[in-house]
Amino acid sequence: MEKEVTIYDIAELLQLSAATVSRALNDHPAINIKTRQRVQSKANELGYRSNTFASNLRKKTTQTLGVIVPRLNSHFMSSVLAGMEVVANKAGYHMLISQSLESAANEKANARTMFNNRVDGLLVSLAYDTESYDHFAGFIKKKVPLLFFDRVTDFMECPGIVIDNYKAGYEATRHLLAQGCQQILHVTGNLRRNVYNDRMEGYKKAIQEAGLSERAVQVIVNDLSAEAGVVLARQIMAMEQKPDGVFVASDICAVNCMRALIDAGYRIPDDVAFVGFNNDHVSQIIDPKLTTVDYPGHQMGELAVSTMINHLTSNQPLGATSSIVLRSQLIVRASSKRLLGAD
Amino acid sequence: MEKEVTIYDIAELLQLSAATVSRALNDHPAINIKTRQRVQSKANELGYRSNTFASNLRKKTTQTLGVIVPRLNSHFMSSVLAGMEVVANKAGYHMLISQSLESAANEKANARTMFNNRVDGLLVSLAYDTESYDHFAGFIKKKVPLLFFDRVTDFMECPGIVIDNYKAGYEATRHLLAQGCQQILHVTGNLRRNVYNDRMEGYKKAIQEAGLSERAVQVIVNDLSAEAGVVLARQIMAMEQKPDGVFVASDICAVNCMRALIDAGYRIPDDVAFVGFNNDHVSQIIDPKLTTVDYPGHQMGELAVSTMINHLTSNQPLGATSSIVLRSQLIVRASSKRLLGAD
Repeated sequence: MEKEVTIYDIAELLQLSAATVSRALNDHPAINIKTRQRVQSKANELGYRSNTFASNLRKKTTQTLGVIVPRLNSHFMSSVLAGMEVVANKAGYHMLISQSLESAANEKANARTMFNNRVDGLLVSLAYDTESYDHFAGFIKKKVPLLFFDRVTDFMECPGIVIDNYKAGYEATRHLLAQGCQQILHVTGNLRRNVYNDRMEGYKKAIQEAGLSERAVQVIVNDLSAEAGVVLARQIMAMEQKPDGVFVASDICAVNCMRALIDAGYRIPDDVAFVGFNNDHVSQIIDPKLTTVDYPGHQMGELAVSTMINHLTSNQPLGATSSIVLRSQLIVRASSKRLLGAD
Repeated sequence: MEKEVTIYDIAELLQLSAATVSRALNDHPAINIKTRQRVQSKANELGYRSNTFASNLRKKTTQTLGVIVPRLNSHFMSSVLAGMEVVANKAGYHMLISQSLESAANEKANARTMFNNRVDGLLVSLAYDTESYDHFAGFIKKKVPLLFFDRVTDFMECPGIVIDNYKAGYEATRHLLAQGCQQILHVTGNLRRNVYNDRMEGYKKAIQEAGLSERAVQVIVNDLSAEAGVVLARQIMAMEQKPDGVFVASDICAVNCMRALIDAGYRIPDDVAFVGFNNDHVSQIIDPKLTTVDYPGHQMGELAVSTMINHLTSNQPLGATSSIVLRSQLIVRASSKRLLGAD
């Protein structure tokens, strides 16, 4: 087994003190830039590794945060992860990332892996079909902090970082009503998840407030994918009484539905107005541009990790916070503007 | 300090043998399903953690792969990561993921972090402005396998996983020529990176082969972002001799340019034909739909990790392979079809 190179080896070879070598390796400004470069270049040459790993073992921390997301390849989730990484990196934490692929069984296996690997904290956005939360019990037991984001639950007083999905759903629907829509279809995901259930409740509240009949409430649940958007267009075309407004809980699903309807000769917003959710790239590429709810994913990622690290380093109690609510905002574009000059 | 729970503790409490407990925890089919559930539930209740961590320490492995990407929030890169995660997870490996945000300085810091954290292998897609590769020397020195994907380099005989960017650029340009374009503008990213340089070389080759003059070669380098696409549209509108074809090395940049040109009254493909790159979601949302090069990101991620794990577990030499080339494919859509019935 090859011996690990130490700072003393580097110090001896360069005729410097170990303290100077240590500070040079950490880019300390008190050390002359040329010396820093000499030390770093020698360290590279010898294959020196800092003793972060050993020191973490002693401190019983791993400086690692576990993150479980439903899918890595969604526009929204990749924005969240990008925000998380920026904050974690600056604070000297690493991210162990896995995806549940929307399955509770995978989520359970991922949680076990994170647990066995001694993550210092765990951040989770729940899978579509997670119903029981026992797989997180070990974290509570071992006092490993647990935080939910976007798709949350009130399991064991763990905090959740969310937007006000109820309000966002309410405002999106109010906007369609203000544009003269009378039959608004709502398309959303699995209602077991807060994000979808809350948006739907906001939608229902707005319909009721408008004094419309029970029959004006019409909800379709699908997986909100691009493919589901194409199927949705076919469903709408087959309806006897067609909606004059559609509020979809995901931009990707919305634009694919719009595209299929436009190709079939429908005029948007005149025949049917559309509102999406997330403010994805695609919402500004479709013609007409899609009215949507701006969901600050990057900011949510930053906040989730800074809350976690703040707890880990200063021992700010995490359980005292039940939820942190970020601002979201309705962005009105051409897909829903049926009245001139109105929004 | 709380004592760690062992399989012996669980065995004693449940009046089972330690071997049965161990197999039950690993979901071994030889153990009755009810016993498995009893053991797993007791293990959860007690906060049992498998000794993966300790066992990895003994074996001097961490079962962790480091991944450095330019940006987490790009459609292409999130597809690659999703593919990587599926393969890593199945093989019992974890992924430590960081982003360089296109800066060589960040990439260097990320590499040091990965190195100090003893990743078993490192997978890198290079930042825009990386020029020197010294920050990877420690990995070579310590025999930690290193593999590049998408944006590669031939540093120290590390293998690279790529598509044939030259061929893809050549075919995209040939297609525009076949559609009658005579003045094709090529828009690409930093030419230091193979992906952009190779696509440009393919473009040039096709122009030369067509017998067009030197002046027919016109290249703009930008950062290929959505914003750069809007700026590009303004540049095109200001040109004295306008291109009749544009080949952009990224769909996001292409569709934003198209959208701005369409809003300004340009007809696509009649005034100017477009070809993009990557086959992002947006390419099928823009009207007319964008001709593009399908780049199998998910598959590239799967292949990168399976190649790495194969090397780690069977000691298949990595250096023997210089590069692995995945198939890409031109997908012709309405944005470039200027001749009836032709493609």
